[in-house]
Amino acid sequence: MKAKKIIVIGGVASGPAAVAEARRTDSEAEITIVEMGPDISYSACEMPLYVSGEIANSERLVRYPVDQFKEHFSSNVLTHHEAESIDVQKRVVTVRDLATQRVRDLSYDKLILATGSGAVVPEALQSSSRDVHILRSLQDARSVVDTLEARTIHHAVIVGSGFVSLDVVESLLHRGIRVTMLASEGRVLNGSLDGDMSTLVVDHLSQQGVSVRSERATSLDVAPDGSIRAVLTDVGEIIGCGFVLIAAGTRPLTELGIRAGLKTGKSGAYEVDSQLQTSAPGIWACGDCIEKKDAVTGKSIRAPLALNAFRSGRVAGRNAARSGKGRPSRLEPVVRATAISVCGLEVAHTGWSVEEARNVGLAAVGETIAHRSASSLANHHPLSVRLVADPSNGKLLGAQIIGVQGAAQRINIITALLRTGATVDDLYNVDFVYSPRLAPAHDAMMIAARTMQKRLIGKR
Amino acid sequence: MKAKKIIVIGGVASGPAAVAEARRTDSEAEITIVEMGPDISYSACEMPLYVSGEIANSERLVRYPVDQFKEHFSSNVLTHHEAESIDVQKRVVTVRDLATQRVRDLSYDKLILATGSGAVVPEALQSSSRDVHILRSLQDARSVVDTLEARTIHHAVIVGSGFVSLDVVESLLHRGIRVTMLASEGRVLNGSLDGDMSTLVVDHLSQQGVSVRSERATSLDVAPDGSIRAVLTDVGEIIGCGFVLIAAGTRPLTELGIRAGLKTGKSGAYEVDSQLQTSAPGIWACGDCIEKKDAVTGKSIRAPLALNAFRSGRVAGRNAARSGKGRPSRLEPVVRATAISVCGLEVAHTGWSVEEARNVGLAAVGETIAHRSASSLANHHPLSVRLVADPSNGKLLGAQIIGVQGAAQRINIITALLRTGATVDDLYNVDFVYSPRLAPAHDAMMIAARTMQKRLIGKR
Repeated sequence: MKAKKIIVIGGVASGPAAVAEARRTDSEAEITIVEMGPDISYSACEMPLYVSGEIANSERLVRYPVDQFKEHFSSNVLTHHEAESIDVQKRVVTVRDLATQRVRDLSYDKLILATGSGAVVPEALQSSSRDVHILRSLQDARSVVDTLEARTIHHAVIVGSGFVSLDVVESLLHRGIRVTMLASEGRVLNGSLDGDMSTLVVDHLSQQGVSVRSERATSLDVAPDGSIRAVLTDVGEIIGCGFVLIAAGTRPLTELGIRAGLKTGKSGAYEVDSQLQTSAPGIWACGDCIEKKDAVTGKSIRAPLALNAFRSGRVAGRNAARSGKGRPSRLEPVVRATAISVCGLEVAHTGWSVEEARNVGLAAVGETIAHRSASSLANHHPLSVRLVADPSNGKLLGAQIIGVQGAAQRINIITALLRTGATVDDLYNVDFVYSPRLAPAHDAMMIAARTMQKRLIGKR
Repeated sequence: MKAKKIIVIGGVASGPAAVAEARRTDSEAEITIVEMGPDISYSACEMPLYVSGEIANSERLVRYPVDQFKEHFSSNVLTHHEAESIDVQKRVVTVRDLATQRVRDLSYDKLILATGSGAVVPEALQSSSRDVHILRSLQDARSVVDTLEARTIHHAVIVGSGFVSLDVVESLLHRGIRVTMLASEGRVLNGSLDGDMSTLVVDHLSQQGVSVRSERATSLDVAPDGSIRAVLTDVGEIIGCGFVLIAAGTRPLTELGIRAGLKTGKSGAYEVDSQLQTSAPGIWACGDCIEKKDAVTGKSIRAPLALNAFRSGRVAGRNAARSGKGRPSRLEPVVRATAISVCGLEVAHTGWSVEEARNVGLAAVGETIAHRSASSLANHHPLSVRLVADPSNGKLLGAQIIGVQGAAQRINIITALLRTGATVDDLYNVDFVYSPRLAPAHDAMMIAARTMQKRLIGKR
């Protein structure tokens, strides 16, 4: 019997996970992974540690260098190759070698799309200046570091206020560079944090000397030698700077599949079933380029997170390779849960914010409380907890937690409960540990739950 | 209509909570709280901070001084009064004023027993030496501090290795006193930690210079002037010391109720229904002196923890005061979950250890893994996670987590899941946050869950 041909397109996180699981499932298959950039199998989430200079060598972000990956998974690796088109009927992918521009056809029995997501750069801000950057790939990170280390930069402008922006703020401050952040409506982590919690982060950034401005960047002033001079804004300001990062949003990279007729959802990501099969026979998809099912509401959502990339990669890899043998894997519904360290502040969220829930027509109310991380008699620091619940039945929809320490692990508690359809009462009833040096007699989450209970029974 | 008379016996944690809730429920009731010691409404869990000298004044552990308590809850407070007997038929409690030895009868309509638990001191170690202490009440703590501050103590012996012992080790080290701990079988936190996790704590104590010995104390050598000279052990050792703490276990204080015919369970604590009513009409009980229902197994257990004291106090207070009006409160089944800071190490547990589960006839297997608290490229420290599960169905029974930071909050995640009857798969599926500086791509609990999954499907 001829070995099955499996092609995986996309090499960062989900693609390599798919290769690994496909190899575990079928030791005979001929597996090829195709990646546009020079690297595969690296940790994009850790790039801020490299941009900051804490890690000197970008290779430390690579889990498997190409040669090791080939050997470890007995697979072919085509880096610097772009997949240009898919012939769904003939089961052929056309790829271009970006070094030679040579085009060739690769036939497949099973295809896995793991093309991820890409930066959205407004047209007016597109620039070939060596000082204007995005940060999606490891190559982007190397380019950023080259710029930062080529000469002394005093002031940087970051366009956008999401996770990448906040990561890079910390990296730039670490290098002693002053930062201005252009944040839509003066808000950060929109979609994760409601307004009051965003304000806590903005205040913290301001205390670190970051200038957070609510203007919109309208154009760039680039000198004839290609260096940046300034960012111009919608109120006519000219913000002089030596470095610009555009991190104004991401979108799923699905043009390849769309051209081949694959269905996408409202978010632009591929529609897949619970086994991660796309609308086309023989084609699976995984990672940032697919829609997942939200565990809280059952809605289709994008959830471009590392853990989802690994997990969905494994599901797609197994199902593509199994050929009807054994049980298919399924991707469990997901909860969007994130944490980020912002200049020494832990900022974490899970599930739905009030604003986001209302945007999709869900009834949602929020309550925010402040409490201590530990006993007032021991070392402690302030924690802010915001809960989001459905007022009709008390069901938890999400939470946001900010503090010097412990926010990330506390958010995991709510995530665990969200998966079970828990109510505010269920959160209140958790037997939170108490130890004066570690946790107060009544944990901040218990107090938040109690506050929400009172709100919901109309006692306030 | 005559105001209802409510008497609460026991003034530390559960009793004051019962008074507060009774007052909220019935603004007219005549409420009296009876306490043997001089203090009411204090935080016993914070006593180690006073013993260590971090808090100079014991009054800071008191939430409501007697006068404030009286005023705030419009209640009578009888400190230095011991309840000697209950006449269940006549609804009378006989109390003795410990200052005057005067005895008198107090009649009640509703009675709440919140007598807590007391230290078990082996007969051979009972002593009136000013250097030999227990640590249960705030008076005990003052007595300990008086001894520690009266003269220079170089070496202390702690008999026992439970929570109080570990708390006091840290307090004594903080004062520069060398410590020997006599730990049954060389183990600490028996009942909470399985052997391998106990070893991690013992190793840490040893690194701090604490001598942990598995001998048993058989007698005390007390000088004619009442000062301690040495602790003698079952292998004939003579351990010279200037201070001894006996913290060899606790038992529920239920003699009062037993003499009045109230039913107790196997543990010696009062049997109560979910509304916390005892077997006698008109008598409720709460706190450390009652049995609770375990949320994991449905078994009756003791769970002498502060949060249970507050919660059960509120339930008993409301139900005793409501007189058929409104809905009765119920005490939810509980999960035993604890955390303690041991000389900079967080040690946390929830639910059942393997040994404890097997002791009551439950099938249980354990798996322990070691992982990092954060990305290997960022600051991180080791974490050890032990999961306990029912091998027949993968249901989680408990967990133990030890690490420099984050163990206490991580254990809350498992506690939240234990309340839902979750399996190891449910734990694995939690969307743990990932952020290089805060949490690794695969959280230690996810790796522990994966390891247990493999064990349970016999792949190892």
